[in-house]
Amino acid sequence: MRILVIGAGGLVGKAAAAALGMRHEVIEASRSGAVAVDLADPETIPPMFESVGAVDAIVSCTGTVPFKPLAELSLGDFRSGFEDKVLGQVALVQLGVDYVRDGGSFTLTSGILAREPILTGAAASLTNGALESFVMAAAAELPRGLRINAVSPTVLEDATGYHDYFPGFSRVSSESLGQAYVKSVEGVQTGQTYAVD
Amino acid sequence: MRILVIGAGGLVGKAAAAALGMRHEVIEASRSGAVAVDLADPETIPPMFESVGAVDAIVSCTGTVPFKPLAELSLGDFRSGFEDKVLGQVALVQLGVDYVRDGGSFTLTSGILAREPILTGAAASLTNGALESFVMAAAAELPRGLRINAVSPTVLEDATGYHDYFPGFSRVSSESLGQAYVKSVEGVQTGQTYAVD
Ligand SMILES: NC(=O)c1ccc[n+]([C@@H]2O[C@H](COP(=O)([O-])OP(=O)(O)OC[C@H]3O[C@@H](n4cnc5c(N)ncnc54)[C@H](OP(=O)(O)O)[C@@H]3O)[C@@H](O)[C@H]2O)c1
Ligand SMILES: NC(=O)c1ccc[n+]([C@@H]2O[C@H](COP(=O)([O-])OP(=O)(O)OC[C@H]3O[C@@H](n4cnc5c(N)ncnc54)[C@H](OP(=O)(O)O)[C@@H]3O)[C@@H](O)[C@H]2O)c1
Repeated sequence: MRILVIGAGGLVGKAAAAALGMRHEVIEASRSGAVAVDLADPETIPPMFESVGAVDAIVSCTGTVPFKPLAELSLGDFRSGFEDKVLGQVALVQLGVDYVRDGGSFTLTSGILAREPILTGAAASLTNGALESFVMAAAAELPRGLRINAVSPTVLEDATGYHDYFPGFSRVSSESLGQAYVKSVEGVQTGQTYAVD
Repeated sequence: MRILVIGAGGLVGKAAAAALGMRHEVIEASRSGAVAVDLADPETIPPMFESVGAVDAIVSCTGTVPFKPLAELSLGDFRSGFEDKVLGQVALVQLGVDYVRDGGSFTLTSGILAREPILTGAAASLTNGALESFVMAAAAELPRGLRINAVSPTVLEDATGYHDYFPGFSRVSSESLGQAYVKSVEGVQTGQTYAVD
């Protein structure tokens, strides 16, 4: 397959690209990549697709959300997480439909904060919950046998900078996380959230 | 208790206000109400609290989201549902903390589309999923023993205009739905989503 991975240079994206790259052609894109796109600026998405052309799967591993105590989270903070992580990935799906071949798939990235809280994580929880319900609903309306799933990881073993914020949470290896993206891309399910704990 | 119900004139709000009103003082607010507020315009929230004063519970039964086929939902549609239903209720919580007495509660309204899809419901699913994960996370960070829950109803028996969009879905009576708000307000749990199917 020909697979476009947005954010393939990040911690999660590297895990996805490494696992998918074993058997497939992976095209990497990000703000600073050779294939450039900024999901927070949806106008950059069509030019990316023009340059990449048709693919069998689109995988997104991006999304920046403010982490602050609840009392300090402004409406602007909630909005910025929504625009970047939620609307960015929603726009990728809406605009990507025409570039994914029949029977192909979308895989978005949410995160464990959809289902478990941490201090300072209210905006992140909100965005992740939004994505997981979106994926469930969008699956029912995609044309031409296209599928869509979310991968919802706990914190990565490699994300040592985050470990203190996730006390006692299980940590996942890059290898295990990569397999969730393989399952979504090569599997048969749609509308699912693959929790990786 | 003294309970502020936003949207008490609507189908869901009437169910909540009737059940809560049996044992408590209910103060009703909405855009066209005697106590005026437009949750989609957060600047109207502080004046509402100034006029209402301290309460024991805040219940919100509002939220307008566009329903359209996935391919016709624009990013502006997703944004408008988010601003109205999600950020409106988030702002109510953020600004309401100072007006709810110690040990009091917030109860927000999401909906079954967080967990089950219907055609044209992708934006609604997204907003409902966002609210349910927000409630879970915010519960961990509210001060002074304040609690927060969501009520997530299936379609109401009385909402006959929606029935065709929910084929085969269970329908809930106003009386049963009202009890979910009573459970949230008078109960002891926090961070919960009460699914009413
Ligand atoms: N790390 C974890 O343990 C973990 C756990 C659960 C969930 N997650 C979620 O996984 C996602 C990725 O996290 P991460 O830790 O891998 O982040 P990361 O290491 O910061 O990597 C992010 C990647 O995405 C690209 N990117 C960022 N913003 C972009 C945008 N607006 N448009 C296009 N590309 C963009 C970055 O490259 P450029 O700078 O070149 O754009 C980079 O390649 C986030 O949503 C995060 O919440 C992470
Ligand atoms: N009806 C159902 O079967 C059902 C099922 C599941 C979930 N829900 C959810 O429950 C919520 C309420 O639905 P509903 O059917 O009861 O709606 P509704 O009958 O249209 O009532 C909405 C109520 O909220 C007020 N309102 C609307 N927008 C407002 C705003 N921006 N600020 C303050 N007040 C506002 C309205 O009064 P004013 O016009 O005076 O502002 C009205 O009292 C929605 O989020 C809906 O998705 C409904």
